[in-house]
Amino acid sequence: MTEPMNVVEVLRARGVAVDEISELVYDLQAKYHPGLTREECREHVLHVLEKREVQHALYTGVALDELAEQHRLPQPLQAIMERDEPLYGIDEILALSITNVYGTIGLTNFGYLDKLKKGVLGRLNNHSSQIHVFLDDLVAAVAAAAAARMAHQHGTSAE
Amino acid sequence: MTEPMNVVEVLRARGVAVDEISELVYDLQAKYHPGLTREECREHVLHVLEKREVQHALYTGVALDELAEQHRLPQPLQAIMERDEPLYGIDEILALSITNVYGTIGLTNFGYLDKLKKGVLGRLNNHSSQIHVFLDDLVAAVAAAAAARMAHQHGTSAE
Amino acid sequence: MTEPMNVVEVLRARGVAVDEISELVYDLQAKYHPGLTREECREHVLHVLEKREVQHALYTGVALDELAEQHRLPQPLQAIMERDEPLYGIDEILALSITNVYGTIGLTNFGYLDKLKKGVLGRLNNHSSQIHVFLDDLVAAVAAAAAARMAHQHGTSAE
Amino acid sequence: MTEPMNVVEVLRARGVAVDEISELVYDLQAKYHPGLTREECREHVLHVLEKREVQHALYTGVALDELAEQHRLPQPLQAIMERDEPLYGIDEILALSITNVYGTIGLTNFGYLDKLKKGVLGRLNNHSSQIHVFLDDLVAAVAAAAAARMAHQHGTSAE
Repeated sequence: MTEPMNVVEVLRARGVAVDEISELVYDLQAKYHPGLTREECREHVLHVLEKREVQHALYTGVALDELAEQHRLPQPLQAIMERDEPLYGIDEILALSITNVYGTIGLTNFGYLDKLKKGVLGRLNNHSSQIHVFLDDLVAAVAAAAAARMAHQHGTSAE
Repeated sequence: MTEPMNVVEVLRARGVAVDEISELVYDLQAKYHPGLTREECREHVLHVLEKREVQHALYTGVALDELAEQHRLPQPLQAIMERDEPLYGIDEILALSITNVYGTIGLTNFGYLDKLKKGVLGRLNNHSSQIHVFLDDLVAAVAAAAAARMAHQHGTSAE
Repeated sequence: MTEPMNVVEVLRARGVAVDEISELVYDLQAKYHPGLTREECREHVLHVLEKREVQHALYTGVALDELAEQHRLPQPLQAIMERDEPLYGIDEILALSITNVYGTIGLTNFGYLDKLKKGVLGRLNNHSSQIHVFLDDLVAAVAAAAAARMAHQHGTSAE
Repeated sequence: MTEPMNVVEVLRARGVAVDEISELVYDLQAKYHPGLTREECREHVLHVLEKREVQHALYTGVALDELAEQHRLPQPLQAIMERDEPLYGIDEILALSITNVYGTIGLTNFGYLDKLKKGVLGRLNNHSSQIHVFLDDLVAAVAAAAAARMAHQHGTSAE
C-alpha cells in the first residue's frame, strides 16, 4: 500500500512548488522587512502548511479539482467546475478557512493576490487543460496566511 | 442525456425531505411566533434553497459525501471522511457559507442544531452504511438560515 | 497614569471570572475526556485569552457594552444596543473572530452555548441594569475556542 | 429631539459620498460590463446600503472611529485605535459581515481595494487628524458587495 501524499507532495503533484508560494510572500512583505530573505518566507510557508486546518482545506480543494479533471463529479457540480463559474464561491470559502488561522489580517493580502494573479497564480489561472478552481485560491490563501504569521511575529503590518 | 438534479432532488436522493428541514425550523421558531404553521416554515426553507450560494454549498458537500461512499476520493481525504474525523472543519465552513446568506444571526441556531442532532439530523448522524460528513451540517445550516430569514421578515428574534 | 487593564481584569470588571468560563468548557468536554479537571479547562481558557485576536475582540465588545450603559454611543447604535436588537449580528461576528482562532470546529459549541445560555451566560443575559450585548457572545466564544483547543491537542472531538 | 442619521448621512458626515463608492464599483466592473454607467453602480451601492446587516456594521465601526477621535474609548482600545495597530483585525471582521451579504465572491474585491487604497480609500487612509480605522475597510466592503450584487444579477464575474 502506498502512503498518502503529504501536503507538500500534493501541491507539487498539482504543479506548485513551495518556493513559488514563498516568492508571493516575499513580494508582499519585502517592503516592510528590510533584509527579508526567501528562506525566512519559506519557513513561514512551511509552518502554515503544518496546520491541520490548512491541510484539510488543501486536500479537499485539490481533490475537487482533480475529480473535475477526471469528469467524475456529479452534475451540476461537474459543469460548474469545468466553466470555472464566477459565482461559485466555495473556493473562496475554503481559502478563508486558511487565512483565518492567523486572524483576519490575512484577508486583505488574500484578496489582493487572488485579484492580480501574480507569479504562480497567473500560471495556474491560465492553464488550459487542467482545472484549478480551488488551487489558485488556496495557494493565495497560504501565502496570505504566511504573511500574517510573519506580521504577528514581528508585531508589524501584514499589508 | 439526463437533466442534472435540482437541489431538492439532491436532498431527497440523500434521504432528506424538505418537510424534515421545515420541522427543524418550526421547532426553533414556534415559541417566538404564535400561530406559526409548518407551511410558513416550508416556504422559508424553499426560499433559502433557491439561493445560488446555498445550492453551491449543497452540491459540493453532497458530492464529497457520495464520492467518499464510493471510495473514490484520494488519500488522505478518503480516510478522513470515512472516520468522520472530528477535527475536519470543512463541513462547518461550507455550512457557514449557507448561514451567512441571511447574516450572522443564523450562527447560533446552526450550532445548536448541529450539537443536539435533533430530528432528521440525528438520523443522518447515526447512519451506519452511508457517509454524511457534510449533509448533516448543511441541513442544519439550511434550517438555521430559514429561521434567520423568518426573523428578518418579522423583525423579531432568530433565537 | 493607570495601566490599561489586561483582558482577565476586563472580564472581572464586567462580572465574569475565568473559572466561570472554565466551567462552561468542563461541561462541554467532560464526557469526551474522563478524568478531565477544572484546572486543565482553566489552562486552555487562559491560553485562548493570551491570543491577540481574542483580546482585540474582547476589548472592542466590552467597550461597546460599557459605552452603551453610559449612553455615550451615537444614535441609532445606542438604541439598538439598549433593546438588544435581535437582528444586530455584530456581536456574533466578533465572537466568530474568537472561535476561528482554533478553526471552525468551535462553531458548533459556540452556537450551543449561545442558545442555551448556561451558567455565567444565563446570568449575563438576564441582567436588568447592565448591557451585555457583546459580553455573553464573547464569553461563549472563548469557552468554545478553549474546547476546540483541547480537542486539537488530544486529537479528539470538540463536540 | 433630532432624528438619528441614516446610513448615507453617517457616511457623508465622515466625509464619504455615495458617488465615491460608486466610482470604486465602476473601476472594478467596467471591464466586465461594456456600457456600464456610474448610475447603475450607484443603484447597486444604494441597495447594499439598505441591508440591515450592512447598516449595523457601518453604525458600529463609525461609532468606534468617532469615539477614538474624541478620546472616549477605554484603554487599551483607545491606544490601539490611535496608532491604527496593524494586527487589530476587528475592522476586517466587520467588513467581512458586509461582503458576506452577497456571498463570498466579494472577498477578492474587498482585499484588492483594501490593499491598493484607490480613490476615496486613499484619502481616508492618509488623513492626519481623523481616525478611520474602520471606515476605509467598511467603504471597501460596500463597494465589493455592490460589485458582487451586480455580478449575481448579470450572472457574470465579480472579479
